[in-house]
Amino acid sequence: MKRIRLKAKHDRRFRTGHPWAYSNELQESPKNLSPGEMLELQDPAGKFLAWGYGNPASLITFRAVSRDESEKDSISAAGVARRLESAWKLRRTLGFEETSHRLCFGEADRLPGLIIDRYRLADKTSAFIVQAQTAGADQWTKDFAPVIEEWRQINADESLRSGVFVIKNDSSSRKWEGLQLEPARILSGSSNKDLSQASILVRSADLKTPAPLEFQVDLLGGQKTGFFLDQWANIQLVLQRIEQWPVVTRRKQIRVLDLCCYVGQWSAQVSRFFEQRGVRVEVTLVDSSRAALMSAEKNVRASGATHVKTIEADVLRGLADLPDRAFDLVISDPPALIKGRKDVPVGTHAYLQLHTQSARLVAEQGAWVACSCSGLLTEESFLETISKASRRQARRFSWIARGGQSPDHPILAEFPEGRYLKCWLGLAD
Amino acid sequence: MKRIRLKAKHDRRFRTGHPWAYSNELQESPKNLSPGEMLELQDPAGKFLAWGYGNPASLITFRAVSRDESEKDSISAAGVARRLESAWKLRRTLGFEETSHRLCFGEADRLPGLIIDRYRLADKTSAFIVQAQTAGADQWTKDFAPVIEEWRQINADESLRSGVFVIKNDSSSRKWEGLQLEPARILSGSSNKDLSQASILVRSADLKTPAPLEFQVDLLGGQKTGFFLDQWANIQLVLQRIEQWPVVTRRKQIRVLDLCCYVGQWSAQVSRFFEQRGVRVEVTLVDSSRAALMSAEKNVRASGATHVKTIEADVLRGLADLPDRAFDLVISDPPALIKGRKDVPVGTHAYLQLHTQSARLVAEQGAWVACSCSGLLTEESFLETISKASRRQARRFSWIARGGQSPDHPILAEFPEGRYLKCWLGLAD
Repeated sequence: MKRIRLKAKHDRRFRTGHPWAYSNELQESPKNLSPGEMLELQDPAGKFLAWGYGNPASLITFRAVSRDESEKDSISAAGVARRLESAWKLRRTLGFEETSHRLCFGEADRLPGLIIDRYRLADKTSAFIVQAQTAGADQWTKDFAPVIEEWRQINADESLRSGVFVIKNDSSSRKWEGLQLEPARILSGSSNKDLSQASILVRSADLKTPAPLEFQVDLLGGQKTGFFLDQWANIQLVLQRIEQWPVVTRRKQIRVLDLCCYVGQWSAQVSRFFEQRGVRVEVTLVDSSRAALMSAEKNVRASGATHVKTIEADVLRGLADLPDRAFDLVISDPPALIKGRKDVPVGTHAYLQLHTQSARLVAEQGAWVACSCSGLLTEESFLETISKASRRQARRFSWIARGGQSPDHPILAEFPEGRYLKCWLGLAD
Repeated sequence: MKRIRLKAKHDRRFRTGHPWAYSNELQESPKNLSPGEMLELQDPAGKFLAWGYGNPASLITFRAVSRDESEKDSISAAGVARRLESAWKLRRTLGFEETSHRLCFGEADRLPGLIIDRYRLADKTSAFIVQAQTAGADQWTKDFAPVIEEWRQINADESLRSGVFVIKNDSSSRKWEGLQLEPARILSGSSNKDLSQASILVRSADLKTPAPLEFQVDLLGGQKTGFFLDQWANIQLVLQRIEQWPVVTRRKQIRVLDLCCYVGQWSAQVSRFFEQRGVRVEVTLVDSSRAALMSAEKNVRASGATHVKTIEADVLRGLADLPDRAFDLVISDPPALIKGRKDVPVGTHAYLQLHTQSARLVAEQGAWVACSCSGLLTEESFLETISKASRRQARRFSWIARGGQSPDHPILAEFPEGRYLKCWLGLAD
């Protein structure tokens, strides 16, 4: 195994626990490394720092897998399997056993660049959608069979054995690692179902009605891994906060505007929650994708909404016709409008535009859920956009909840890059 | 009413919605203003900006009450009563009607410097503990009877009419406003109970057991207004996240270490939650105040804890004797260790010391709740302290929840000074 060494005085950042080393922190040029090659990182004096993998094509030359010198096998199939098992134990602890969850969240699960969302299907089998975001994760998943085999030997869960593993390497972030984008393909196992029209079980956000919700989604061609599992905790938080809101503000029905609704996750959970409490829910779904809208309409109807309407539109342009203060609950949960550092100014402005429209559309004493999943938009900048948007519309909001990503997307305190989702709930005057 | 004017080019910050104007932003010296005097703030060209009040003794010379020119009476008794009623409506919306809550949170409720915690007592009457943190709030509360009278005219709640209002101006922050510290005294109404040994109703953090908890507290001589209502939402969040944790990690009993326990809020809620789920709870309470420990012991026993132990100690010095990894759940929720800008370095170090001990004491696969209520400690600095503390103890934590202040302490997006409470939940490897 090759060794690479940090420059003198350039080891401090890595020693604070951050899992990356950048090319300009290394003594030698990384150009002789192979993409995804397993490496030992050393300090300037040649002492062991970490096992991990390298990539000469990325500014992030090294990603750490283990800082334990005795754990040299952490980067082998057995080591990856051990980490998957420990990731699975965390999700069980969090109560996700029976419903879909993010099983592996890259760096936070000590498997940098490896994303695995585990979808529990209606028949209780599992579809694992795997994404390799880095050259090292690409190496692991090129031949994933030994990893799955090792994992099955230490895991007693039957649904793992009957699960299908699909690799879906269509994320544009692969380009920064010099990797090709590829269509989805099966890595292991098989499915007798059409995964492009899968019925997945999603955890209820309503503690009083724990039965999972079913969503029709496209796990092969949909956005990301097919569904946004990271919003579950925010939906739960919002619903807990506003349970009494229709009662106190005397709303017998609530009009929901779901911007960038994708497959209708927010509206379906909101509808089931309030319809079960005797409040009628009328949903207006907005998305630029007709396919997403069709799924969303089906999913939201199944959740018991009284009325569902769809608008096929780009939310940055298509909202001007909607009348002021027309919705009791406005949810603005756009896809990442900032993907790289160069997008920050334009993307921040796009958030401001969207939030300005949202602030306009919230009814008096209405509620507004504002989200951003762009890690490069800081929470302070995010708050500036919602504050500026409110001011432009001469609206005043009391912010009564701030969410983040669901706990199956755990956070490392030393890895701010892993904290990306912001979600705030405000009530209008 | 006097008018004060912002300097040319110094109106931008105020126009972004922040409710304060500083002395160096004003055209004239504030020395002729009376403390707490009602004022009109104007822009550099002499146009109306806001109604509010001034204080020549504070760097914050002006605090805005209303930006609506037609709402000149916002700073009168009727105006204050209207804002209290709207604050009360928000707390009802949030589901705090039957239990103790922060009724008024200063700037966030458009009553700068005015804090009112409303304690629901066991007999359903209310004790309102009022704190005036600024010269303007001091003016309002000097003769609060007209405010209460106006408020009663627009509020139908009987427990308001039978409530006692107590002013408790013992907060050291009054010094920055040039105000004296004063012992608690009754402003209005009377109570046949001894408020120094009050029995208050606190909202359950367990949705499955909604009956309120009773806490014995000293509303006259205790810390702040007698209880820390701001942690309720964090306790709820933590309990929801770790409900399955004893099951999955095979714990039939959990050992809780409650650092700076005060009257035992965390431990009481945790004990009731887990004892009701068949998990025994052993609590070790640590505080430097013997009186607090005595209340805490009583409160935690009443919640059903299997075993309660107390340690009278300063948590920055007295934890060294406790063995490594001795507690399944460690809660570190100290009082503000940073009170002013000059305390930032020393206070940050104190957090690091406390967190280093906490990280040491968490069992394997144990849970750690780390808090800071110092507004001057940023969330990034807070995360640095818990990260550094973990590293010093060679421990790894997955952070699975981040809390904030309870929703009865609402947040204005344009007022970062109002966001102060941080609370993170981590699970150890």
